[in-house]
Amino acid sequence: MIPIISVVGKSDTGKTTLLTKLLPELKARGYRVATIKHDTHGFDIDKPGKDTWKHAEAGADVVAISSPAKVALIEKVPRELTLDEVAERIQGVDIIITEGYKRGNKPKIEVHRAAVGGELLCTEEELLAVVTDEPVPVRVPTFGWDEVAGLADLIEERILGSGSPSRRREKGI
Amino acid sequence: MIPIISVVGKSDTGKTTLLTKLLPELKARGYRVATIKHDTHGFDIDKPGKDTWKHAEAGADVVAISSPAKVALIEKVPRELTLDEVAERIQGVDIIITEGYKRGNKPKIEVHRAAVGGELLCTEEELLAVVTDEPVPVRVPTFGWDEVAGLADLIEERILGSGSPSRRREKGI
Repeated sequence: MIPIISVVGKSDTGKTTLLTKLLPELKARGYRVATIKHDTHGFDIDKPGKDTWKHAEAGADVVAISSPAKVALIEKVPRELTLDEVAERIQGVDIIITEGYKRGNKPKIEVHRAAVGGELLCTEEELLAVVTDEPVPVRVPTFGWDEVAGLADLIEERILGSGSPSRRREKGI
Repeated sequence: MIPIISVVGKSDTGKTTLLTKLLPELKARGYRVATIKHDTHGFDIDKPGKDTWKHAEAGADVVAISSPAKVALIEKVPRELTLDEVAERIQGVDIIITEGYKRGNKPKIEVHRAAVGGELLCTEEELLAVVTDEPVPVRVPTFGWDEVAGLADLIEERILGSGSPSRRREKGI
């Protein structure tokens, strides 16, 4: 099972921004990382007129495209997949980080900004950490927006554990 | 193992066109179908500026996006995956039809047009059928461009066999 954590927060608190800081930090430490974006509205990732778009329009349930540098799959689903069902479709990574899925049951990092205000979305029990620009009254580790290295340390310690490339090397696995 | 067939042919002979005729025919017969497009040049399926694009730019090896109607995955690969490796990433369909992969080892349907001319790309041994607008000297079934129902019959008989929804119903499986 690939470990999964969720970056959650209210709109415009910076979920994507945190991911764009955290991903290079984890990559620099040797991890292979997948992300899952929860899109509640629907997306159009394929371009009208492209061959793959024509396949989907003509009825293909799954459309894949493979090139020397990447492969993409688009799958029609009869209902929204659960986070675990999406995760089952991912292989070959050390950790999966979701953007969204605040109602999921994975350890969460909540992002918070004073300018957006309000209470945290998550209870302490759900939280691995909070990334915030003001003090928040929770008994979990909190990090400023420039403390991504500390957050990555926590993820290594609490989530990746012996799964980390460096620890595997130490153990000679 | 999900059966795989390949639609191959020279440029501009109508590989995508055949797929857009064959897919509705197979869907009408109750099959779930996946397609794989072989793109030798590289594709840009995600849109610059989108959150998923930002995840990939920031280093994510796999980016997924899940919505109520569909889920998409984009995976960076260190070398081009083989057809079988792409197929391993697909589940829940009765048949996979590729567009391209003329050098692959799957049964092939070659599309041919008089206006493009020349010899067939495939040997008889590789061919399941030819779709053509002029007579071609091969000892495999040939179909005109308006004979997609006959081609689908052949695919059911030779490739899908007892895997077909209708036959499963007959057998009470």
